[in-house]
Amino acid sequence: MFDLKENPADETVKADAGWRSRLDASYARVRSDTEALSAPLSAEDQTLQSMPNASSTKWHRAHTTWLFETFVLKPHLPGYEVFDDIFSYVFNSYYEAVGPRHPRSSRGLLSRPGIAAVTDYRAHVDHAMHTLMKSCDRKIADLVIMGLHQEQQNQELLLTDIKHAFSLSPIDPVCAQSDMSRAPAHPLAPISWQPLEAGIHEIGWRENEGEVFLFCFDNELLRHEALIRDIAIADRPVSNGEFMKFIEDGGYRCHNLWLSEGWATVNREGWEAPAYWRRDDDGWSSYTLFGRQNIDPNEPVCHVSYFEVAAYAQRAGHRLPSEFEWELAAATLSPGTPLPEGPRPTRLRPGMRQEVWEWTMSPYSPYPGYRAPEGVIGEYNGKFMVNQMVLRGRSCATPTAHDRISYRNFFPTDARWQFSGFRLATDL
Amino acid sequence: MFDLKENPADETVKADAGWRSRLDASYARVRSDTEALSAPLSAEDQTLQSMPNASSTKWHRAHTTWLFETFVLKPHLPGYEVFDDIFSYVFNSYYEAVGPRHPRSSRGLLSRPGIAAVTDYRAHVDHAMHTLMKSCDRKIADLVIMGLHQEQQNQELLLTDIKHAFSLSPIDPVCAQSDMSRAPAHPLAPISWQPLEAGIHEIGWRENEGEVFLFCFDNELLRHEALIRDIAIADRPVSNGEFMKFIEDGGYRCHNLWLSEGWATVNREGWEAPAYWRRDDDGWSSYTLFGRQNIDPNEPVCHVSYFEVAAYAQRAGHRLPSEFEWELAAATLSPGTPLPEGPRPTRLRPGMRQEVWEWTMSPYSPYPGYRAPEGVIGEYNGKFMVNQMVLRGRSCATPTAHDRISYRNFFPTDARWQFSGFRLATDL
Amino acid sequence: MFDLKENPADETVKADAGWRSRLDASYARVRSDTEALSAPLSAEDQTLQSMPNASSTKWHRAHTTWLFETFVLKPHLPGYEVFDDIFSYVFNSYYEAVGPRHPRSSRGLLSRPGIAAVTDYRAHVDHAMHTLMKSCDRKIADLVIMGLHQEQQNQELLLTDIKHAFSLSPIDPVCAQSDMSRAPAHPLAPISWQPLEAGIHEIGWRENEGEVFLFCFDNELLRHEALIRDIAIADRPVSNGEFMKFIEDGGYRCHNLWLSEGWATVNREGWEAPAYWRRDDDGWSSYTLFGRQNIDPNEPVCHVSYFEVAAYAQRAGHRLPSEFEWELAAATLSPGTPLPEGPRPTRLRPGMRQEVWEWTMSPYSPYPGYRAPEGVIGEYNGKFMVNQMVLRGRSCATPTAHDRISYRNFFPTDARWQFSGFRLATDL
Amino acid sequence: MFDLKENPADETVKADAGWRSRLDASYARVRSDTEALSAPLSAEDQTLQSMPNASSTKWHRAHTTWLFETFVLKPHLPGYEVFDDIFSYVFNSYYEAVGPRHPRSSRGLLSRPGIAAVTDYRAHVDHAMHTLMKSCDRKIADLVIMGLHQEQQNQELLLTDIKHAFSLSPIDPVCAQSDMSRAPAHPLAPISWQPLEAGIHEIGWRENEGEVFLFCFDNELLRHEALIRDIAIADRPVSNGEFMKFIEDGGYRCHNLWLSEGWATVNREGWEAPAYWRRDDDGWSSYTLFGRQNIDPNEPVCHVSYFEVAAYAQRAGHRLPSEFEWELAAATLSPGTPLPEGPRPTRLRPGMRQEVWEWTMSPYSPYPGYRAPEGVIGEYNGKFMVNQMVLRGRSCATPTAHDRISYRNFFPTDARWQFSGFRLATDL
Repeated sequence: MFDLKENPADETVKADAGWRSRLDASYARVRSDTEALSAPLSAEDQTLQSMPNASSTKWHRAHTTWLFETFVLKPHLPGYEVFDDIFSYVFNSYYEAVGPRHPRSSRGLLSRPGIAAVTDYRAHVDHAMHTLMKSCDRKIADLVIMGLHQEQQNQELLLTDIKHAFSLSPIDPVCAQSDMSRAPAHPLAPISWQPLEAGIHEIGWRENEGEVFLFCFDNELLRHEALIRDIAIADRPVSNGEFMKFIEDGGYRCHNLWLSEGWATVNREGWEAPAYWRRDDDGWSSYTLFGRQNIDPNEPVCHVSYFEVAAYAQRAGHRLPSEFEWELAAATLSPGTPLPEGPRPTRLRPGMRQEVWEWTMSPYSPYPGYRAPEGVIGEYNGKFMVNQMVLRGRSCATPTAHDRISYRNFFPTDARWQFSGFRLATDL
Repeated sequence: MFDLKENPADETVKADAGWRSRLDASYARVRSDTEALSAPLSAEDQTLQSMPNASSTKWHRAHTTWLFETFVLKPHLPGYEVFDDIFSYVFNSYYEAVGPRHPRSSRGLLSRPGIAAVTDYRAHVDHAMHTLMKSCDRKIADLVIMGLHQEQQNQELLLTDIKHAFSLSPIDPVCAQSDMSRAPAHPLAPISWQPLEAGIHEIGWRENEGEVFLFCFDNELLRHEALIRDIAIADRPVSNGEFMKFIEDGGYRCHNLWLSEGWATVNREGWEAPAYWRRDDDGWSSYTLFGRQNIDPNEPVCHVSYFEVAAYAQRAGHRLPSEFEWELAAATLSPGTPLPEGPRPTRLRPGMRQEVWEWTMSPYSPYPGYRAPEGVIGEYNGKFMVNQMVLRGRSCATPTAHDRISYRNFFPTDARWQFSGFRLATDL
Repeated sequence: MFDLKENPADETVKADAGWRSRLDASYARVRSDTEALSAPLSAEDQTLQSMPNASSTKWHRAHTTWLFETFVLKPHLPGYEVFDDIFSYVFNSYYEAVGPRHPRSSRGLLSRPGIAAVTDYRAHVDHAMHTLMKSCDRKIADLVIMGLHQEQQNQELLLTDIKHAFSLSPIDPVCAQSDMSRAPAHPLAPISWQPLEAGIHEIGWRENEGEVFLFCFDNELLRHEALIRDIAIADRPVSNGEFMKFIEDGGYRCHNLWLSEGWATVNREGWEAPAYWRRDDDGWSSYTLFGRQNIDPNEPVCHVSYFEVAAYAQRAGHRLPSEFEWELAAATLSPGTPLPEGPRPTRLRPGMRQEVWEWTMSPYSPYPGYRAPEGVIGEYNGKFMVNQMVLRGRSCATPTAHDRISYRNFFPTDARWQFSGFRLATDL
Repeated sequence: MFDLKENPADETVKADAGWRSRLDASYARVRSDTEALSAPLSAEDQTLQSMPNASSTKWHRAHTTWLFETFVLKPHLPGYEVFDDIFSYVFNSYYEAVGPRHPRSSRGLLSRPGIAAVTDYRAHVDHAMHTLMKSCDRKIADLVIMGLHQEQQNQELLLTDIKHAFSLSPIDPVCAQSDMSRAPAHPLAPISWQPLEAGIHEIGWRENEGEVFLFCFDNELLRHEALIRDIAIADRPVSNGEFMKFIEDGGYRCHNLWLSEGWATVNREGWEAPAYWRRDDDGWSSYTLFGRQNIDPNEPVCHVSYFEVAAYAQRAGHRLPSEFEWELAAATLSPGTPLPEGPRPTRLRPGMRQEVWEWTMSPYSPYPGYRAPEGVIGEYNGKFMVNQMVLRGRSCATPTAHDRISYRNFFPTDARWQFSGFRLATDL
């Protein structure tokens, strides 16, 4: 559903004579990352599907394997034997062109194939992929890289989906032990407004970034000019502490702050705080993959929908940045502070790119001149370009390889199960 | 939800000086029967919940354990330590008086506690129960016997629920290997009509059946007089072959055969045959716990709703028996033929009591003079006595201990996932 | 949906040589009664449909006309010209055999035909009917009488349906001025229990009641024997005052009083009192067709569902009578007190037959030997005989002609928009 | 919900000494236009509400009256007597700040107040408005003008809403006689592509257009610069004939043409053609306010959703224009052809502005620097700026006064009951 980016280690994949072995190493690393994420989860955990928009861990593991089997091995490895014909029905996500598929909302009923079969499936495909990569050409390598980026997207979804499922459990499951002493973040300084340079700027993936960035998704293209006006952007996301103030001031009960559809959602769903928050005698806590934890007021607020974010901005008298303003700021401004939550070792990076995805005010639309790629792969991004908003940045659960400023994440306006926060902008 | 009866081995429980050891042996046997049923199911299988009316295997195993913990051990075994406090929230079925509970429709989201924890839970409770039964009095013994009967009911539900879940799988899971060569049943003779003796007859559980029947549920009481008219009842249930004829003759498309609510259900659900049936080039097959199998026209039709049964009877120009007529027939007439499907060794019995539950024309109502028992246990049967129909007999999945003619099973008129069939009656 | 019976004026229809003119007079009177009921309602009022189970006034007026056109005039009056072919699609209720029809839930969208067209339709059919009745034979007369009874049923539904629609209006419409000074009812005496005579009694419509009762619906047949046990029945229905006590004692919040499905309904619908009741600073009031009025504690409670009635009885330690017990009591016991609400002059009668329909504990099932009539008319009663409960008696809105003790009214267990109350019975 | 603009007759309202009498004349004209539109509709017609997004004619008539009463008369006319206090509950649309209101989805249940009362209400308010306008100041005049524009928006909705309701009727109501001989439109020439001038252009309402345009809605502000790329835009909308070709070529069954959410909608709703279209032996016809009519292949296609429009463009290998491209084209290019359907005399205009609203590819977002107005009036446009798409132009049912190129109409992507069509654009 969204997209990531290869990391610097792969930067010379295509130029280098030894690129095939590097490709093979990247493949091995990405695939084992997925297994590491699912390792703490029991067979039962890996079967859960808590809502139609989420998938089971097992399904993520098998679906990403099916992608390599379907789009790389079957057309390009002579003599490849399909692991199990029924899997194409079971683990196709939304590729209409590939054929009928198991209903999305019934993924949680797939007790079989079990996790042992899925592990066998992954090994079968990995074995064939290693064979293929020994002698593949550049065109096939591009398909492999695309597949790895999709698998990395599924890694983040694997975490957000199991977090959602566990949040509904009466026993607050602990998925992983925190390996860091969660020292409280330093008290935050007030927001500082950083002005952008007005005028025409180039936006989108830069082809000659090639040295560093080997890959982008189709929705980051074409690079094009955008008109930027006189605005300033906050130097950090809105914090938990600031959002608590919004709650205490009655923000969730004040209709005039909300979009009409947002107000209807708040009332229908009974929202009174971000997802996973709960207030008891000890104050606010939140369900996390480390179990239930107290909320640190100095960390960025997370698990808020676009509706909540828009209401907050309305009350503050500011607005969200557009995705172009965000990208320009990311390219030209200096860093902020990180947020630790990921249950996996992830390279935390300082700077503008915070540890929550940041909602922008930009609806998800095609860039000028965008054309969906030909063939099945064309179903990947274009067909979702309506009724969603763009998020930029990265979260604590995003693979570092996907950390590029042209990356466009997107979700519907009521989605809260992603690691989503926001920062403010203001017109000058 | 429905009820079973102790078997002859326990017949002297209360009279015999050695009744405590017999009770203990019965307990051990019933509990291990449950484990045997779930043994072929993987951890993932045991977590599935396919609809709100069904429960996961794991839940059945834990709920029946919770019954003994809550109603026997906590009040009656001094010093008993509760296994896990949260389990009372998680594994309470519908006992309002015990407190709030996990929403029924979300039982499928319980990946944790896992099956290992449930196995530990069962062992913990079994250990305490064995201690208790060494010196318990008769009153406690009655609670134990009640609990065992409820566990046996859950054994049948465990099978019908996992069958429903598996039927939705794209891979037709094989749950067990058939241990019998499924020789086709002998061709059936035409139905023979057995007249009943009109007049006033006694109906309901007979206290002085004590030698044989040690237990009944509250809904089988009080034994009372019923007025039986001049009718005859079929000597066997309607067969698959006879029901196929109904389908071929357009029975599912003929509005005038159906109850109004039944016709609406047929059209809304798109029913064209009994549940689990599918027609392809090789004819009719049905999903079973042994995998998909051809349908034997000589076996009783199964997995039909009350609506379908009523339509069949309307077309045949006959009707269903009332539950009183059924019970009188069972008490006075001679036997028919058995139907094998159970995935567990079960003592097959000749006679009137066929291998499918049989819908009657009787709505599920209290018997004259019925009063729900005092206290929590009173929630057991009485509160379901509305908008359901009575089924009589036993199915291939019913524990033999529950095989008594006064037993009243009951389900809503659109239920099809039970092993439900029917036989005809006719007014003379 | 339910059924009524002609009144004494018609008693000699078949015997008398002048029966055709009497039939014509009956027809004229019933038809004008319907018009009198709808006269106070504006064109907009007559178009309202507030829920799928209710119909608009205009639809009731036209549907009853369509019955005569379809089942009497078209087959039996040579040369009859159908008023408008489309009406058979628009005003068919549920007769599958007559053909497709306008969806029930969209009756409220029928602004056209307008009430003027419906009035013309009625005049057109009345004119043809008068012609037909001048020379019709006995068999046709029976169809006419059946149609008149159905129209009278629709008269009561017309009132309950518009009452439901008006109850949702923010302005509490006044449909009619009360023509009686609503002097408070006399304080009630405590309930007195009337014993019934145990044994076998005959139940159902008595053919040789012919002098008085010329008509019954098919569901009142066959007259048959029923076994009555030792019970006593209350001499009057439960009153508003008694039901208020149930509310004040927390009856709506006490799960153990309720059937399981009833308790789910109470919580889903947020019921806290009978339908149309509202509590404000001045105490309880209720929406009535005369506008909002204070509730008189001495009148029978009305607009309660079977679920509420069953909970009340559970708390009282009693039960509802069966429909057979009710009928025997009505045939053999002495009277109680009337309740005035009907917006139309209606002959109030003393006695057992109170002014609210009374829920019984009997599910709506066929009588022994019941067979639905052949042909289209057979769709009338039989196909509703499932998942409903029988009510007996009559309400303030029931035409006097339908006031017979064998009459079986029936509704689902959650229905509250009928004039439904109850009385208690108790086992001796 | 959307917005209109005063017409040239009012051009000097503020400058002229006689502006008050001109204002009064405008008021009288707009108000009588509404009455003229509803005149052919019966009391029953005026009560219909066919879906939650639509309102009854009566409600439109009363709501626009309530706007003047609430926002003009109550605060600004000393001694004004409110017509009926309950009306503020009944006829408030969505102004949260004014207080609670009748549920939107239940507007169709308002048989009372009847149309006679609504007519009285309009007269009462008109009388007071005339008094007020004799001496009001400029600030109040602005409120009046705003109210008139909202009433004109409701005029168009009144037509689209009753068309939707009538389309569900089994009798294809004729709402008005066509006063024009519907001579078939001339055969269309192929689309001619009109290039736009790339570069930075000003977009939005131009204050100094004052001579001609006296009014705009807040969402047309601020006028701002937009970057236009090298594209060409079609000289006319896509026609019925061209859209029939799309249908015949299987466009509705070809998943790869559709947005993912669009494909789900097509399958869920069973769409096979634009709304109101029906195919029988005589070919395609469509329900119109003049009754059912054959479809003229030369007229613009109408009643299509954004989803259908996007699929058509995908297949054509083109795209929709953005709203900025559309506005620039409308300001600089030459005209096309008109489409007659309006049941009211409406000044048909040649030119770029076709007779269907035209979907653009622009999500409905605020213009740079947009701030919602202070106070209740601020609820008007801003709170709908999410999950909708902008439409530009005008339809056959749009009051001529609203015919300005900066006007922004907006609807959800699945809406089809508006007069919505589209034209293509293409990148150069």
